[in-house]
Amino acid sequence: MSELETRVRCKSLLKKVMKVEETLQFFKPGMNLGWSGFTPAGYPKAVPIALADYVEANGLQGKWKFNLFIGASVGAETEDRWASLDMIDRRWPYQTGKNIAKGINEGRIRMGDKHLSLFAQDLGYGFYTKDTESGKLDLAIIEVSAITEDGGLVPTSSCGVIPEILQVCDRIIIEVNTGQPSFEGMHDLFTPGTPPNRQVFNITKADSRIGKTYIDCDPEKIIAIVESKHLDKGRAFTDIDETSEAIAGHIIQFFSDEVKAGRLPKNLLPLQSGVGSIANAVVGGLAKGPFEHLTVFTEVLQDTMLDLFDSGKLDAASSCSLSLSEKEGFPRFFANWDKYADKIVLRPLSVSNAPEPIRRLGCIAMNTPVEFDMYAHANSTLVGGTRMINGLGGSGDFLRNGFLKIMHCPSARPTKTDPTGITCVVPKAPHIDHTEHDLDVVVTDQGLADLRGLAPKERAQTIINKCVHPDYKDIMQEYLDISTKICIAKGIGHEPQLFDRCFKMQMNLAKNGTMKIDNWDVPEIV
Amino acid sequence: MSELETRVRCKSLLKKVMKVEETLQFFKPGMNLGWSGFTPAGYPKAVPIALADYVEANGLQGKWKFNLFIGASVGAETEDRWASLDMIDRRWPYQTGKNIAKGINEGRIRMGDKHLSLFAQDLGYGFYTKDTESGKLDLAIIEVSAITEDGGLVPTSSCGVIPEILQVCDRIIIEVNTGQPSFEGMHDLFTPGTPPNRQVFNITKADSRIGKTYIDCDPEKIIAIVESKHLDKGRAFTDIDETSEAIAGHIIQFFSDEVKAGRLPKNLLPLQSGVGSIANAVVGGLAKGPFEHLTVFTEVLQDTMLDLFDSGKLDAASSCSLSLSEKEGFPRFFANWDKYADKIVLRPLSVSNAPEPIRRLGCIAMNTPVEFDMYAHANSTLVGGTRMINGLGGSGDFLRNGFLKIMHCPSARPTKTDPTGITCVVPKAPHIDHTEHDLDVVVTDQGLADLRGLAPKERAQTIINKCVHPDYKDIMQEYLDISTKICIAKGIGHEPQLFDRCFKMQMNLAKNGTMKIDNWDVPEIV
Repeated sequence: MSELETRVRCKSLLKKVMKVEETLQFFKPGMNLGWSGFTPAGYPKAVPIALADYVEANGLQGKWKFNLFIGASVGAETEDRWASLDMIDRRWPYQTGKNIAKGINEGRIRMGDKHLSLFAQDLGYGFYTKDTESGKLDLAIIEVSAITEDGGLVPTSSCGVIPEILQVCDRIIIEVNTGQPSFEGMHDLFTPGTPPNRQVFNITKADSRIGKTYIDCDPEKIIAIVESKHLDKGRAFTDIDETSEAIAGHIIQFFSDEVKAGRLPKNLLPLQSGVGSIANAVVGGLAKGPFEHLTVFTEVLQDTMLDLFDSGKLDAASSCSLSLSEKEGFPRFFANWDKYADKIVLRPLSVSNAPEPIRRLGCIAMNTPVEFDMYAHANSTLVGGTRMINGLGGSGDFLRNGFLKIMHCPSARPTKTDPTGITCVVPKAPHIDHTEHDLDVVVTDQGLADLRGLAPKERAQTIINKCVHPDYKDIMQEYLDISTKICIAKGIGHEPQLFDRCFKMQMNLAKNGTMKIDNWDVPEIV
Repeated sequence: MSELETRVRCKSLLKKVMKVEETLQFFKPGMNLGWSGFTPAGYPKAVPIALADYVEANGLQGKWKFNLFIGASVGAETEDRWASLDMIDRRWPYQTGKNIAKGINEGRIRMGDKHLSLFAQDLGYGFYTKDTESGKLDLAIIEVSAITEDGGLVPTSSCGVIPEILQVCDRIIIEVNTGQPSFEGMHDLFTPGTPPNRQVFNITKADSRIGKTYIDCDPEKIIAIVESKHLDKGRAFTDIDETSEAIAGHIIQFFSDEVKAGRLPKNLLPLQSGVGSIANAVVGGLAKGPFEHLTVFTEVLQDTMLDLFDSGKLDAASSCSLSLSEKEGFPRFFANWDKYADKIVLRPLSVSNAPEPIRRLGCIAMNTPVEFDMYAHANSTLVGGTRMINGLGGSGDFLRNGFLKIMHCPSARPTKTDPTGITCVVPKAPHIDHTEHDLDVVVTDQGLADLRGLAPKERAQTIINKCVHPDYKDIMQEYLDISTKICIAKGIGHEPQLFDRCFKMQMNLAKNGTMKIDNWDVPEIV
């Protein structure tokens, strides 16, 4: 029996096995497609790559365009290549890649972002397909580890929005990934109910299980099965720099203080940590730190999480995806399967990011924005207020509902001409994804500002004192002082701003390559 | 037996009964106080009024200041009078009244607002008292209907943050309100657990009960009991105007269309509706409308909700407070107690506004902002971006977690010189409380914009087409067109804005009394 036959245990489905190229017959330009996947993990690869090859070979760029609905970003060899071949019209709710970002910011690709937990549900509720004739997705491509005897789907390294895709799609192409071990047993899945009949998510600890290890799927919906040996193109490990180390140090100290004050248990609370260098440094700090029996309740597990398991300090982790690097993380994980596998629960996005368990368990939410302002409104998505990077992601799911809501970023970033040409703490964020009402704590390499219980002007002063880079301290202080003076004098000074000059630093950056300005008196006009 | 003795069933507590004036001994300037109450309902009145009288009589204005932590606003005869006597230093997380707003915007009162569900929990977690010596509130004043045999507290017309106050306060003054019937039986209460041991809120329909009709309280904590006959100073009914009627009409039509499309059940989903004229019009429209067996899951029930009950179309309502008007609503309610009482569940704020039941049940959230912008970021709190009105309230709890998230406001408001001098749809909201990621639908008297599945520039065009007042259509369209052209040309045009002029209309309002501007070319400098 071939590996494929072993994996497809619903034998009646074997007649639907075909070559990858044969699935191209099912695609028509303009289709609404749902894919499995969440970050470069668990996404279909064989079929999307074959379709891209076909478009390229036949000069169909710009003629064959599709709408992509996927849990989050996927590997660059799929969505970013599609973007480079002008194969994407709409893209929801997150993406990664130079070509796709270019297409979005030049107005060729219509992208929308949404809190990920809401995206999942809204897809299942039919909100994204409401204007189509069928009210459904046209076609889905789902990567699986196996298919059970009854047709149940066993995902691979992520769950994404598979349950919701199955609710709104009747034609499904399956990629059975035999290039890696089966992930069977790691998932916790169920078919979500529609309000008011939605299930209670009875999760009372990070690794509670409330569903099954596969998701029911009507075998009639499966129109094709292909074998794939492509591996997830997981991101390489991000090196930890001094700035990240400093931020992590402030956070670990803060945790210690909170434990001492009795506001956090000794093993902290379930941790959510974003991606990137700072997140790596925080997890690295925890691996060396004083806290034991930690748990993680998050949306993405990266390579550093294996270090935290190895340290013996992490008891369990819940996530939507296991997004390890292709060259290091996955080989290490597969080689030590027994050590990690039973401590990990992979959940669909609508559960991993649901407000219900996040608030009940009291997650500690930690994410990196582009910048935040002196009142602690944060910009996570649009550089300069208009240029999309990746999208909102799940940060809002965790920051709104967690026990402690923390955002961290460098105090300054370099421009081509000035090593601190950009301050990440500004008078007013040019785009706001998370409001002052959501954040408890903001951190930079300079220090940590605990904003709990502070009124707006107190928040601003604390942030300037603790977080702003020395090169910008006087500039920021002057803005706070003059805006307060002017607004208080007019009796409109609860949260002072001067709307003729609040973006003066951003305009100076565009014009002169630095956010360092000489004075606040008269705005620069571009 | 006096009415007071009947209500205080824990007989050992009767020895703590005293005159209102005798409680003044417990107060010291600078204290952190927790009050019951939520909107002008269920708040202590006798003691706060006596304290204000004392301060006034003894010239202690500005010398006796307190920090007030209450579920939301309370009656003007308490907090607003305190503000007029300069008795408030800090005020969390919402307030109502001319004097208190003046104090906040002139910088004398330090106010902070927070999503109400988070405020409740954060108070219980000790986040607001973390810098005090005891880590606790100094004193609480709680209005009750009765005290059970074991010392359990039975609230009156609201639950507010009573459970969390009991978690962080050891000295409690009780006002037993014998001036109105007891509300016993209407509440659903329990002592909240602290993460990770927080309870599952097993609410599966609007009127599910998961607790007891009173909340446990150690009788040792009660330091004084006073009798009060003061009635809640509930707001008078807001008349419905043509603008509100038009908005309500658009919403009812939208509901009908969603039911027809199969995305809403015939009896809709549990409704959350804010306060004010538009909310009244929507509820009025539902009372006359085609939908039956409705339910309500909200934070405030107002007079119009009695009409909806009377129409026979409302089966059950869950709320944090029963905030009826003093002259009409409460007399009508008390005269028809049996008709309404068993259909109403009053919950503490940390449950009424919890994301868990709101998302599980799939609430339809409807709230009125100050304004929203063309990408659907909404300003709920700060007029002109800096002047506090009341606060954020619970709008974010419902808008983030509901099934459909709707905001509605007039398309334009009058200034002294121009009946449409203010547009409520602007290029960029000067303050943002709810982001583009939270709102599905925005509505004005001009029409309804269904934004589900639309990318930013599509959202902007739809909002301009459907919601903008005719006097501002050309102005808004020109801004969208030029900002799109300029940003797309630079390859930074996912969500276009021009930061040198995005607030030009607001600056024109401040200078010339209208937001109608002649052109977008050069910004006005104030």
